[in-house]
Amino acid sequence: MSLVVVGSVAYDGVETPHGRVDRMLGGAATYISLAASFFTKPKLVGIVGDDFADEDVKLLADHGVDLEGLERVPGKTFFWAGKYSREMNDRETITTELNVFADFNPKLPQGYRSAKYLLLGNIQPALQRSVRAQMNGLRFAGGDTMNYWIKDFRDELLATIREWDFLLINDSEARMLSGESNLKKAAARILDMGPHTLVIKRGEYGAMLFRQDSFFIVPGYLLESVFDPTGAGDCFAGGFAGYLASQGFDLEAGHIGRGDLSRAVIYGSVMGSFCCENFGVDRFRTLSRKEVDARFEEFRTFTSF
Amino acid sequence: MSLVVVGSVAYDGVETPHGRVDRMLGGAATYISLAASFFTKPKLVGIVGDDFADEDVKLLADHGVDLEGLERVPGKTFFWAGKYSREMNDRETITTELNVFADFNPKLPQGYRSAKYLLLGNIQPALQRSVRAQMNGLRFAGGDTMNYWIKDFRDELLATIREWDFLLINDSEARMLSGESNLKKAAARILDMGPHTLVIKRGEYGAMLFRQDSFFIVPGYLLESVFDPTGAGDCFAGGFAGYLASQGFDLEAGHIGRGDLSRAVIYGSVMGSFCCENFGVDRFRTLSRKEVDARFEEFRTFTSF
Repeated sequence: MSLVVVGSVAYDGVETPHGRVDRMLGGAATYISLAASFFTKPKLVGIVGDDFADEDVKLLADHGVDLEGLERVPGKTFFWAGKYSREMNDRETITTELNVFADFNPKLPQGYRSAKYLLLGNIQPALQRSVRAQMNGLRFAGGDTMNYWIKDFRDELLATIREWDFLLINDSEARMLSGESNLKKAAARILDMGPHTLVIKRGEYGAMLFRQDSFFIVPGYLLESVFDPTGAGDCFAGGFAGYLASQGFDLEAGHIGRGDLSRAVIYGSVMGSFCCENFGVDRFRTLSRKEVDARFEEFRTFTSF
Repeated sequence: MSLVVVGSVAYDGVETPHGRVDRMLGGAATYISLAASFFTKPKLVGIVGDDFADEDVKLLADHGVDLEGLERVPGKTFFWAGKYSREMNDRETITTELNVFADFNPKLPQGYRSAKYLLLGNIQPALQRSVRAQMNGLRFAGGDTMNYWIKDFRDELLATIREWDFLLINDSEARMLSGESNLKKAAARILDMGPHTLVIKRGEYGAMLFRQDSFFIVPGYLLESVFDPTGAGDCFAGGFAGYLASQGFDLEAGHIGRGDLSRAVIYGSVMGSFCCENFGVDRFRTLSRKEVDARFEEFRTFTSF
């Protein structure tokens, strides 16, 4: 079934202990779509300037990403630059140039509006809400957010996620949103805010899935070398939603079960781990579905007892 | 099969955000023995002063802990006091009074020397080594250590763990011992130092088991409230070694397999999680084996996919 992905398409400058790239393809919607493309044909909604390179369009198109919703306008594409700490637990933003992204006002092509799955990258909650309102027949909609919206746009954010089926955030965001430092209590509070499914990402420590009646926890994949963690959380989201969209659940007949959601969390973890293995989106240039499934099985091996 | 446990028996003063206790039973060997007692009848080796209370002897004896190796000498029992930070990620030591523990020189009763399992709590590596030398017929020996010995007694520590089957340390200790910040690489280096089995404890994030040919990772149990984390790592060790000792593996015929070790890591996690549910050893006063096994099954439920 179809998955619509909305968010930033950008150029990034990244420095990690392993090296530095001054300008490369990035943005939440880019990472989400590429990760999801290993499972389904995502329909991207985003905005870029006239500096957006043909080779980057080609990379997305070659991965089966539908680009009808990628608006091209005069001006420069969103640019972000950051530098990671030695252990890569922290990163410092060096530059944020919103450019054409400052006026992003997502308009969905007609062919996108009946999609059953929607994944909203981290953008202003009011925009996320406007996207949802343009769709009819949604069965599983949700997305990401960040500390800035939680802190300064709380009411707008709460009105937005009230309509969501799932919310995907990291542990510190879950604590901030709920006002609870204990994650089990935090999850219970968030599940009262609307979404019936909550995924909390914990970076190298893995991820947790919460529903009213159950939860699932997976440890992080143990990489020998984290090259560049940029986009890992978005790739997690893309793997999670992409896998679910690919399964063609008979959503009319009921909700997605705990087993399917758990496997989606594993595929999310798999895609997030691959993302860290090279700079930017580079790992996805060569990655195969066979490697994805092999890593899924690795998760089973190292977590079974 | 028999398990010998060696380490501190102490009184602790603890302050957490949930309250404060000025003096209560503590010490690594105490926590290890109590946790192990849910699986086997551990033989404790330790030293206490003449202030050691009868009710504390009784608690250990009532749990089936063999106290023949608990030496009582004139003077005061080891006393430690600490205070936890608000999120309980850090603790500050307020007092350390070694007292009679300063002269601890473990001598094993004759009936302990032929035990097949040995778990050495965190004490000076030379003492750990002297204990091992007093035993004959050991099949699975190992223990814990800490940053102080890794940093200032490195050669002594390396000579000690070279003779061990397993090493149980936390993630920062693993990084310090190996000189590698990546845990997968750190584990590979440590497995070259002697032990064929390495368990890395990660506190709330769970634990990892490494052997030359495989690894196993379990996330932490999600407690709604961590009352007092003192002793949780030792209880992990006690559950781990206690479970293995209880299984009566035919060690003469071969090594313990990955499946058994993984289940031991789960039982370790179970005992560590119970430890945090109340101050000091209090949770073990009422805990039943049935509750232990129910939590083991909970682990299976929330990690299966």
